Amino acid sequence: MKPSTLEQPAAWLDERIAALQGENADVYSAAGRVLAVPVGISGDHPRVPIAAVDGFALAAGETVGASDYNPLPFRVSETGVAHAGSSRAFPVTSGQALPDGVDTVIPLEETDHRGGMLDIYTPLAAGNNIVPAGREARSGETMLEMGRRLRAADAALLMALGFATVPVVGRPRVAVVVARDDVPDASGTLVRTLAAMDGGIVADPVYPVHSGLSAALVRPDADLVLVIGGSGLGSNDHAADALAAAGEMVFRGVAINPGETTTIGEVRDTPVIILPGPPLAALFAYDLIAGRAVRRLAGRDTALPYGTRRVTLARKIASGLGRMDCCRVRVSGDRAEPLAVSDNRTLSTAVRADGFVLITEQSEGYAEGAEVVVYLYDQRF
Amino acid sequence: MKPSTLEQPAAWLDERIAALQGENADVYSAAGRVLAVPVGISGDHPRVPIAAVDGFALAAGETVGASDYNPLPFRVSETGVAHAGSSRAFPVTSGQALPDGVDTVIPLEETDHRGGMLDIYTPLAAGNNIVPAGREARSGETMLEMGRRLRAADAALLMALGFATVPVVGRPRVAVVVARDDVPDASGTLVRTLAAMDGGIVADPVYPVHSGLSAALVRPDADLVLVIGGSGLGSNDHAADALAAAGEMVFRGVAINPGETTTIGEVRDTPVIILPGPPLAALFAYDLIAGRAVRRLAGRDTALPYGTRRVTLARKIASGLGRMDCCRVRVSGDRAEPLAVSDNRTLSTAVRADGFVLITEQSEGYAEGAEVVVYLYDQRF
Repeated sequence: MKPSTLEQPAAWLDERIAALQGENADVYSAAGRVLAVPVGISGDHPRVPIAAVDGFALAAGETVGASDYNPLPFRVSETGVAHAGSSRAFPVTSGQALPDGVDTVIPLEETDHRGGMLDIYTPLAAGNNIVPAGREARSGETMLEMGRRLRAADAALLMALGFATVPVVGRPRVAVVVARDDVPDASGTLVRTLAAMDGGIVADPVYPVHSGLSAALVRPDADLVLVIGGSGLGSNDHAADALAAAGEMVFRGVAINPGETTTIGEVRDTPVIILPGPPLAALFAYDLIAGRAVRRLAGRDTALPYGTRRVTLARKIASGLGRMDCCRVRVSGDRAEPLAVSDNRTLSTAVRADGFVLITEQSEGYAEGAEVVVYLYDQRF
Repeated sequence: MKPSTLEQPAAWLDERIAALQGENADVYSAAGRVLAVPVGISGDHPRVPIAAVDGFALAAGETVGASDYNPLPFRVSETGVAHAGSSRAFPVTSGQALPDGVDTVIPLEETDHRGGMLDIYTPLAAGNNIVPAGREARSGETMLEMGRRLRAADAALLMALGFATVPVVGRPRVAVVVARDDVPDASGTLVRTLAAMDGGIVADPVYPVHSGLSAALVRPDADLVLVIGGSGLGSNDHAADALAAAGEMVFRGVAINPGETTTIGEVRDTPVIILPGPPLAALFAYDLIAGRAVRRLAGRDTALPYGTRRVTLARKIASGLGRMDCCRVRVSGDRAEPLAVSDNRTLSTAVRADGFVLITEQSEGYAEGAEVVVYLYDQRF
């Protein structure tokens, strides 16, 4: 089989994989999870107008005519209802529901009050320093869409709206199988760490002997099986054969560099991705292919989870037509310097780099001075 | 006291707070932590040249003169040393140390071998498909600087270099004290979640009664005390007084909006930050001030931990001189639409926004069409 372009396995995985079923999570621990349903409320929030600041609530109509030469006196009243003509002011704290009959709040620090009296020196407008009913959320409105990855502020809003738990997409169970006994621990660590960052629950890896590799790919306890090593054509590369024996091999090789031996299929409806054993290739194969599967199961955006920056290339990058090249670059200001373009083996090139540039299948590379997008390693979200 | 500009408390916190002492972490779980020491190795890695691919290792000198019309035969040898004139090829797997006397590797898929023989049709260059000694890391070189926040690839490299544990900056212990009984749970949830995202170990909040507030600020078990609510001037706002009684109040109010009642000081050498009770103000006061302290204790970059994008303003933003305004915006393509500029109370404005723009103390705002930097809420790293 010829290596497929990246698009084909990506489309195949997207078609096969949907966000996992919802489960209830405590709102406190829900930040970072993905909403399994749209969320709205019945009833406005706040339900009634509330004070936006600490101060005194009063009726704006009663301040008409107030001036420095004509201060209007208000009696500070701890309780009760404002009656027409009574000119009463009610102490309120920020967030407190307003008493009936008032429509403006004067902040504490703008008042001069003593002996239970308050003088007003300027007419106040109705609505000042008041949060109207429904300002945070309106009854029946969708506040948070299904599929939204919850921010800390979202979780806080849910709590403010009275939610104790919220339905979120389940966390994908990721099985890790190490297929060759010469696969470095580095590759296993890398893939497990990245899968956990993408929201997966990553089981301890298993290390089957060669004859047990096929059986080890049958994992009814997992939503995704990631095999590390054994994807190549060498005499120790049994993973593709094991996949074909246990289920179906769909893509033998993907045109990404590093990572071109990546192999994809499924066993009993569970997707299986065989990643290359060398750590640098495992890194790119994970981010471009396996990570996409984990993120999709978790309900997250399948796009690369890195902050980006537009930069100018300080030196040209040559690339082969028909494959996606992943070029590590160093970024300094608005310029990016390609590192080790032809080295698809040395993990420390990714460690020394600030990020990477993708050169698509249709491109033979970029000239010096070209503007490109860098994915920033230190901004993985 | 007049509110200070953001710079003053930031400088004060930076001066008082250093990264916590190092502790050893398993390399497997070290991604995301910050290196407490520079890391290098003694001895090159790899120690000797290794094969970069599965294939056959041979001596390039013995392939001189090979062509389609003159294939040169090599005997495949599982063991032993290549002797001059013997024309032997050694099967190697990717990552394997090369036998003595060879200097090039021909990939498996480019060879035609049978019956223990291999024909070479083209002269090979020395060094092909070989990772030279020291390529990943050179003896004595600093591979990873002190203060670096470890990426997944860094942890993998450390593992490849033979590290089982690595010294990392300790995790800051953050005490949370809720100072007013009308502080919404939303604010507590928000601050605790954000502090955990910034690397803190966040204790369950305490809710002291008013008379116990001063005593509750004495927390020898914490590296930082965050108080929520009680920072204002209202009759229930006792936190500033409690801080002054228990230790020293240094900044009463900071010129950020929302968040201007934020108050900062220390109790027995532990920094104490009093955040406003309303959630929107707590959000900005956390990110701009308290988060800076948590990140600094954790050894992280004190810059805002959000991905950024340069966008054009679809509408002007007005701002007051002398204070830092935090304006929520919606981003669509390369344009940003300001939301609720004058509303410094409604949490859902931050939920509806894609990010925020900071308008510094020296600026009266930005005109329509101005280019600004947006901090993206969905790219918190």
